[in-house]
Amino acid sequence: MSSPRAQEQRANKKTCAPDAHGCHCLLGCSEDKSDVDSFEKLTMVNETQHTCTAGSSSKSDGGSSSGSESSKDSSRCSTPVLDADRHERLREKMRRRQDAGDKWFSLEFFPPRTANAAVNLISRFDRMGAGGPLFIDVTWHPAGDPGSDKETSSMIIANTAVNYCGLETILHMTCCNQTKDDITGHLQKAKRLGLKNIMALRGDPIGEEWEEEVDGFNYAVDLVKHIRNEFDDYFDICVAGYPKGHPEAESYEADLRHLKEKVLAGADFIITQLFFRSETFLKFMKDCQAIGITCPIIPGIFPIQGYHSLRQLVKLSKLEVPQEIKDVIEPIKDNDAAIRNYGVELAVSMCRELLDSGMVHGLHFYTLNREVATTDVLKRLGIWKEDPRRPLPWAVSAHPKRRVEDVRPIFWASRPKSYIYRTQEWDDFPNGRWGNSSSPAFGELKDYYLFYLKSKSPREELLKMWGEELTGEESVFEVFTCYITGEPNKNGHKVTCMPWNDDPLATETNLLKEQLEKVNRRGILTINSQPNINGKPSTDPIVGWGPSGGYVFQKAYLEFFTSSEIVMALLKVLKKYELRVNYHIVNVKGQNITNAPDLQPNAVTWGIFPGREIIQPTVVDPVSFLSWKDEAFALWIEQWAKLYEEESPSRMIIQYIHDNYYLVNLVDNDFPLENCLWQVVDDTFELLNSPTQE
Amino acid sequence: MSSPRAQEQRANKKTCAPDAHGCHCLLGCSEDKSDVDSFEKLTMVNETQHTCTAGSSSKSDGGSSSGSESSKDSSRCSTPVLDADRHERLREKMRRRQDAGDKWFSLEFFPPRTANAAVNLISRFDRMGAGGPLFIDVTWHPAGDPGSDKETSSMIIANTAVNYCGLETILHMTCCNQTKDDITGHLQKAKRLGLKNIMALRGDPIGEEWEEEVDGFNYAVDLVKHIRNEFDDYFDICVAGYPKGHPEAESYEADLRHLKEKVLAGADFIITQLFFRSETFLKFMKDCQAIGITCPIIPGIFPIQGYHSLRQLVKLSKLEVPQEIKDVIEPIKDNDAAIRNYGVELAVSMCRELLDSGMVHGLHFYTLNREVATTDVLKRLGIWKEDPRRPLPWAVSAHPKRRVEDVRPIFWASRPKSYIYRTQEWDDFPNGRWGNSSSPAFGELKDYYLFYLKSKSPREELLKMWGEELTGEESVFEVFTCYITGEPNKNGHKVTCMPWNDDPLATETNLLKEQLEKVNRRGILTINSQPNINGKPSTDPIVGWGPSGGYVFQKAYLEFFTSSEIVMALLKVLKKYELRVNYHIVNVKGQNITNAPDLQPNAVTWGIFPGREIIQPTVVDPVSFLSWKDEAFALWIEQWAKLYEEESPSRMIIQYIHDNYYLVNLVDNDFPLENCLWQVVDDTFELLNSPTQE
Repeated sequence: MSSPRAQEQRANKKTCAPDAHGCHCLLGCSEDKSDVDSFEKLTMVNETQHTCTAGSSSKSDGGSSSGSESSKDSSRCSTPVLDADRHERLREKMRRRQDAGDKWFSLEFFPPRTANAAVNLISRFDRMGAGGPLFIDVTWHPAGDPGSDKETSSMIIANTAVNYCGLETILHMTCCNQTKDDITGHLQKAKRLGLKNIMALRGDPIGEEWEEEVDGFNYAVDLVKHIRNEFDDYFDICVAGYPKGHPEAESYEADLRHLKEKVLAGADFIITQLFFRSETFLKFMKDCQAIGITCPIIPGIFPIQGYHSLRQLVKLSKLEVPQEIKDVIEPIKDNDAAIRNYGVELAVSMCRELLDSGMVHGLHFYTLNREVATTDVLKRLGIWKEDPRRPLPWAVSAHPKRRVEDVRPIFWASRPKSYIYRTQEWDDFPNGRWGNSSSPAFGELKDYYLFYLKSKSPREELLKMWGEELTGEESVFEVFTCYITGEPNKNGHKVTCMPWNDDPLATETNLLKEQLEKVNRRGILTINSQPNINGKPSTDPIVGWGPSGGYVFQKAYLEFFTSSEIVMALLKVLKKYELRVNYHIVNVKGQNITNAPDLQPNAVTWGIFPGREIIQPTVVDPVSFLSWKDEAFALWIEQWAKLYEEESPSRMIIQYIHDNYYLVNLVDNDFPLENCLWQVVDDTFELLNSPTQE
Repeated sequence: MSSPRAQEQRANKKTCAPDAHGCHCLLGCSEDKSDVDSFEKLTMVNETQHTCTAGSSSKSDGGSSSGSESSKDSSRCSTPVLDADRHERLREKMRRRQDAGDKWFSLEFFPPRTANAAVNLISRFDRMGAGGPLFIDVTWHPAGDPGSDKETSSMIIANTAVNYCGLETILHMTCCNQTKDDITGHLQKAKRLGLKNIMALRGDPIGEEWEEEVDGFNYAVDLVKHIRNEFDDYFDICVAGYPKGHPEAESYEADLRHLKEKVLAGADFIITQLFFRSETFLKFMKDCQAIGITCPIIPGIFPIQGYHSLRQLVKLSKLEVPQEIKDVIEPIKDNDAAIRNYGVELAVSMCRELLDSGMVHGLHFYTLNREVATTDVLKRLGIWKEDPRRPLPWAVSAHPKRRVEDVRPIFWASRPKSYIYRTQEWDDFPNGRWGNSSSPAFGELKDYYLFYLKSKSPREELLKMWGEELTGEESVFEVFTCYITGEPNKNGHKVTCMPWNDDPLATETNLLKEQLEKVNRRGILTINSQPNINGKPSTDPIVGWGPSGGYVFQKAYLEFFTSSEIVMALLKVLKKYELRVNYHIVNVKGQNITNAPDLQPNAVTWGIFPGREIIQPTVVDPVSFLSWKDEAFALWIEQWAKLYEEESPSRMIIQYIHDNYYLVNLVDNDFPLENCLWQVVDDTFELLNSPTQE
């Protein structure tokens, strides 16, 4: 079964895979060794270079008349490869990390029971994703309609993790008691949603007296074979290993042979059941190697988090807890904190032993959907890597069709999930430049209720933050100002999110805090901004992104809602800045004023990297702005006004703003100079306050 | 006949034509005026803004499911519009210049008689093109096989002007004594070659007794009608006007009526026959307007350049020279310089009268293929604009299919005509980024003899520059060094061109002169280079390009031939610069060493402009480099070795270099720092000279 994978590797080679030396032959390596004496001398002095005989390039392309015809056969990458992570399969990432000597971790979650729990789980994915897991996996709950479109189904949670959280994800799938068609259907759906990895399991038989079905799926190996038969090499397949042997296996040895069968059938790597002693795993690993299992085997780590969860898990897995652990736990069984501390200690020391053995490169954590214990262990092991280098200034999605995506309009900077949702039907993603391939035909955002687009905060909390009762536009200004400053509002509540920003102010925006506070107080209600940057290193902790050795740049950007009175003054002021500042001003009806040339996007974030084309991942795009406008105005109503009773004064205030304010964006094109946008705003207020104003 | 043009205008509007205010409505103007009170106030404070009601953009795009489908209907421009000149038709350019109050000029040439004269004429196009003519035109010589592929034909000269010199060009075409099929064939060929403008003429009948042919082409108006019938609105059509009436017309008035017929049949503008007094033209223009001719009328200016050419022209045109001119000329008829001075004076004062009248915006010059007199007149009028702002760092071609071309490999920087030749079969041009649409399947350059690719200097001159007799590689180093320094070689001849550079050193390269001299002396034979630039204004006289208000950047680049001994040391040195310097090293056999990631191009020139995406017009592209390599090595033989007898020592020296040297290019990615490439070269020589070198 290894042949499809070998094919895949060949295919990769054909497109653009770097060889081990990081050097590249341009037109395929020739075997022609004639007359290369002096050349061989060269390669001897410099062994890390890769060399090849390229022949005449124009000849191999078929000569002049076939010019643009042969462009389709071009063997180069179609996009600047910013980050191998976006292009490699999971098994390749694993191999690369292993070759580089990097230690990594992965996280297992189960699907939630309720829609609210789904919202929380997605936030947890975002938070734990920040620590840099190689992948997460989502278990399959046969009893919970796991392949359905329900927001709590395994399928939809995995889909959300991949597409909206940008996480490499393995979807578990069990096969017993299911028809071939059911399983094929699930797999097809998974593929359609952009899932690329399956954990193939037998699952627990229903009823006591389980019997093999003829031609049915009786063992995980049947599912592995089925996936390879029906989907060739599309999926990476993971299977389960049992360091103590499967409880139903005739023997430990027989279970090892079953495991080898699963690998021979096409599995790419193994994740083990939990265990309590590192020796258990290390012995298992040696035994696997002894019978010829060569794929990666990842130990499953279970940090003990509480007495009951441990008991339940042990019951399900039919494992025995070693006496030395029982001895510690029993006396403190009612002290959750003490048990968790002990569990963390135990996991840390076991993980250290595993990593120190030199045989283990990655650790798989059974999180039980909880954050603290696993995060503690990872941090103490030093493999939790907060804020790993960003490949682009925005969070990338892990859907295969979005692999080449490297430019987005700036408007959705704080609502990346909404952007992904509204572009989910696109077949092609803008790549390198926005231009005419961008097709900014955005899906309408009607589904504010979708769990991955919903605010993390419940209604009561939002009311506390945004005001139980609004007394006028001024009280709205105050909410915006409190969000910026981080100070509590007059009722003592901090404003940690806004309809346009579900998270506190970004570090980068903090650079502008003082100015933002000033203008929000006066009714320039900012929802998005970035400072100008004139060539900082791409490794800069705040504004950096992309590979190291590069330089990043930004044009200053400011986006806000404001009244028509202020807009009128602003337009007068902008005349003075005509050549320097681009603006788009639009109201809810779509009345639009702009000085943008044609319908050209304005690149506002770009990076220059060694040996690459320019990357310009963020643009102010006039056409997309009108789609964003719909969403930005709708959020006033959907997220804020609807907190209040119909016809209530608070609701009418928000409705008034929605109906009468303008959404404005400003770009200062002169990025090497001091940002002039604050001056523009100051001039506007000066004009408004001047007694001679007509 | 105006309907096709009206359609064209509508079509332009639909894509991206800016309105007169420079502002733009985004999704078509709606007539919906309901509830726009406050908005009307806004438009009143700011009258230069253009406003429209856009409605919901996502709705007008048909909702979410049609995402990428509707991308094809995207109404935005497909490329950053850097320069309206590249996108407008000639008649639109004329109108825009007139609206802006700009004065302009155009230049008429006739096809040369010999291939050598063709080479000279093309250089003249390049030189006179630098003064910024709105267009040139090439006359049609019925006797000279004008539609053929001969290098002296009208068709091929016009083709060269458009495609290789980047000049907006009008091809003359006469119709009498020709079949419809002949004429259609000529027009089809012109269209295929990228010619967009035709001057429709009757031509001089052959023989004394000319008679109208039934259904034949008897008058220019027949040709105009034919073009509009067969080619719709593809061509801009120019016709001839006769300020004194056509010599064969029944009367001045009848001739005006004929002219009006030509305009009604579809002509876009008129160029007049020469005349000797400004009153003649101004009266003619008023008479044209009086009978309803409203299209532009451009006066034909003939600076008198000599006694004989004046006599000949007068004879052909059947014009009478005014007595006051005859009185001056007759006494000095043998003094060419005096006549030319007088001619220039006369033309300048007449042109001033025309321009001062306010009725004339452009002047058309009958150059007689000579440079001095016309250039003098233009400079004295102040409408010769040397070094007009460059839209891109390289010379653009005027072929319609290359309108969107905005990126090229740096290798052909000094051989743009060869680049155009080798990419003439491409259907699409890389636009914005090089990427996978680039299809670098270059045509092979076998046609070194083509007049527009040939060196401007004859063999004897080249021998004086490059050495009648070479004594070794050192004498080749000396030639390169003399080219860089501008100092005469040891035989006292300046080296003003090289096989890879037909012109003296570019101003920009002069910035590197000292360093270049040093390395060429030591056998680093440079053929292309640019300094690093970290954000200079786009209006910078030396390195600037593109619209004003922008900033341009460059990575330092150095390309040279050198021996394998130096390459071996260089490779050792480059290890120290691995993360900073990208290199490609190739020999004539195509053996290739590089540290470039994948097959990615490296952007080495880019610009940031207000309200636009990033433009990156020059890249170091690893795939194209192998096509360039073929050409760069071949030039040693084709242009240099072949100057010498076969088997001669000189020829063998060049042949040896061709066979054994490497072509190297280096990019310093760290553009904000001091260029490190000179240090790389210094380190290389230090290593070579070090006694401990293995």
